[in-house]
Amino acid sequence: MIKIYKTTTRKDWPDLVKRPVLETKDLNNLIVDIFKKIKEEGDEAIRFFTKKFDNVQLQELEISEEEWQTGIAKVPTNLKEAIQLANQNIARFHSAQAVKPKIITTTPGVECWQESRPIERIGIYIPGGTAPLFSTVLMLATPAKIAGCQEVILCTPPDENGQINPAILYAARLTGITRIFKIGGAQAIAALSIGTLSVPKVYKIFGPGNQYVTSAKTHAQQLGIGIDMPAGPSELLVLADETANPAFVASDLLSQAEHGTDSQVICVSNKIEILQKIKTEIEKQLPLLPRKKIAQTALSFSKLVLIQSKEESIEFINEYAPEHFILCAKDEDFYLKNLKNAGSVFIGNYTPESAGDYASGTNHTLPTNQFAKNYSGVNLDAFVKKITFQKITQSGLKNIGNAIELMAAAEGLQAHKNAVSIRLKNNS
Amino acid sequence: MIKIYKTTTRKDWPDLVKRPVLETKDLNNLIVDIFKKIKEEGDEAIRFFTKKFDNVQLQELEISEEEWQTGIAKVPTNLKEAIQLANQNIARFHSAQAVKPKIITTTPGVECWQESRPIERIGIYIPGGTAPLFSTVLMLATPAKIAGCQEVILCTPPDENGQINPAILYAARLTGITRIFKIGGAQAIAALSIGTLSVPKVYKIFGPGNQYVTSAKTHAQQLGIGIDMPAGPSELLVLADETANPAFVASDLLSQAEHGTDSQVICVSNKIEILQKIKTEIEKQLPLLPRKKIAQTALSFSKLVLIQSKEESIEFINEYAPEHFILCAKDEDFYLKNLKNAGSVFIGNYTPESAGDYASGTNHTLPTNQFAKNYSGVNLDAFVKKITFQKITQSGLKNIGNAIELMAAAEGLQAHKNAVSIRLKNNS
Repeated sequence: MIKIYKTTTRKDWPDLVKRPVLETKDLNNLIVDIFKKIKEEGDEAIRFFTKKFDNVQLQELEISEEEWQTGIAKVPTNLKEAIQLANQNIARFHSAQAVKPKIITTTPGVECWQESRPIERIGIYIPGGTAPLFSTVLMLATPAKIAGCQEVILCTPPDENGQINPAILYAARLTGITRIFKIGGAQAIAALSIGTLSVPKVYKIFGPGNQYVTSAKTHAQQLGIGIDMPAGPSELLVLADETANPAFVASDLLSQAEHGTDSQVICVSNKIEILQKIKTEIEKQLPLLPRKKIAQTALSFSKLVLIQSKEESIEFINEYAPEHFILCAKDEDFYLKNLKNAGSVFIGNYTPESAGDYASGTNHTLPTNQFAKNYSGVNLDAFVKKITFQKITQSGLKNIGNAIELMAAAEGLQAHKNAVSIRLKNNS
Repeated sequence: MIKIYKTTTRKDWPDLVKRPVLETKDLNNLIVDIFKKIKEEGDEAIRFFTKKFDNVQLQELEISEEEWQTGIAKVPTNLKEAIQLANQNIARFHSAQAVKPKIITTTPGVECWQESRPIERIGIYIPGGTAPLFSTVLMLATPAKIAGCQEVILCTPPDENGQINPAILYAARLTGITRIFKIGGAQAIAALSIGTLSVPKVYKIFGPGNQYVTSAKTHAQQLGIGIDMPAGPSELLVLADETANPAFVASDLLSQAEHGTDSQVICVSNKIEILQKIKTEIEKQLPLLPRKKIAQTALSFSKLVLIQSKEESIEFINEYAPEHFILCAKDEDFYLKNLKNAGSVFIGNYTPESAGDYASGTNHTLPTNQFAKNYSGVNLDAFVKKITFQKITQSGLKNIGNAIELMAAAEGLQAHKNAVSIRLKNNS
């Protein structure tokens, strides 16, 4: 069960912020082999791995329009409406992230600007298994559509009957995904990275996955394919002072803990009574959960931490750099102002983390494992490249030409200097 | 010498867009050893590698204030002024990239917004060797300062006397770099990634380098350190129609070719006469260059390509995805509108690429080797993380709560549903 840490000093922080260390196998050789076989044998290799790992013999790797329609028909109307509402909010929030180009005159006659252009072809991976993550389809395909990506390819493993979960098919159709392939695991990442007769090569791959998928994405990155971010188990930190509702906080901690046995939850409070009440609430709510075994294991890695001062609390939070940060405190502004590192922030008693997982509009693909110190969650930027433009007039080049000549000469690059000199001469 | 390709079809494109393949050694084992030794022995290991690779025995790894001052005093006043002008333009252009947070009400009672927060500590690597790249100091440290990065650490190899180039010291002081270490190569990247007694561990590493540095950055990335982008030799594509000035174009092609023997330049035109004139101009200008041998080798990989139609030309350019793209054509708008992939674009006869290398204000750290299909050049975003925030009222949660409950249940995540249900119950 989750433990309370009453007397902590900064010396303890490195241990407290440490994530559970996973026993990861070194999959490198296996992944290299999968990439090699798919490069050499293409679709045949994909069928081979799908038989081997998913135990399904496929002829067609791609979903047909008929399968798509049949699947969509199976999704209950109320779930369709819920997905539509969530997707509308995701679309509103991500559309607002578009930035209009501004032309900047850095020196008279020298105009510079930056424009976003979509990445032409992207791949989305959605894992199979117990939870059909159709919400992740919304989080990745909708921003891709808003960004203007022309082709959005989805790979997801088939079930034992060679089928894809209907809600995934519905979410994919709603968000404008162009093609779906029944391919899972490292072989999906390899196919998207290399391209085969059936599967188009993409320029960037998004989406969660197990350690095979993660390892394959790292390998794809070394081949020059972009990836969304490094992966790690999900996590939540709650800051709860005396204004927090302990039952609500407990429900949030449990919602994170049910993700996987390697999930981690932390609660920081300035009041021991609050931490005790939260612990009692966790013990009350846990037994009712279908995934209580998973949550229980995750809670054994988790911590309720007493920190008295606001200043130390925010320092601790910045050091932890949580993927999800719930803030239930009187002095919200202090924490928001001083927050340096987090993936997404949930403010107040009525903002559960599951709102961001599904329907508030923010993205749920977020940096874990302290990566919030240097990575953003997925946002509109992830689907575009920013290209810079400059246009210089004859007189503009007169204004900056001499500086360029001096600097190029000092760096020993005479041809760089000449490209300016030849124009300045023509100019006089 | 550079060759003219008169009759090309789409079948030839894969060959034409191919970059020169470098013979790269597999440095992985060497890099792993360097990281391991620096992790185990810290500063002692850095001194060991500096002696071994740079042939200098250092006591102090960090530049002292006295060394800094002495170096700065050696920089000629006119070069200082040139650097100031360039830096002012870089600052103006990158400051304009800051985005003010907008609060979006995705559903009544549900407010979402996104804010940038700086990456706290970053590392910049500047290579030694023949060209002291002080311009790259401006391109990386100035946006870092604008973004608000607290600590900006620079590593650069010492010369045989244990000194750093004065212009690098001046640029570093001007741009607010906090500390400079005399460390080069893979050992610099390892030190910044791991941290030693002297060198602070950073969260992201920027800057160019040879294949040892590149390989070390890839290794750092696997340890969770951010890097600016994958590296490759520099390149330029010029689109020149009959309005282009052949002498200017030749000077641009040569400025790119002098970078390194592995640089590549391409010129596309709809007129064979233009290509012939450019070739003649290259032959005229080349012999006068100090770095003519380097440029000559690079030109042997380079191509002058005749493509008649505008539509095919822009498709070819998008397929090539040039790091630098000079556009000298009557119908600028057509090309700008249809451009999908490029690092930075230089428009018109008076916008040489060297303007962007030094002083127009745009960044010169750009994606090479077709990475412009999925990567942006360095811009203000590279120095921040974007954090999302949401604040939901009691009535806001009523508006989206049911959708969250339905979706969470359909994904089999009951505790996610509960976190909403417990609040809605309290709400009624």
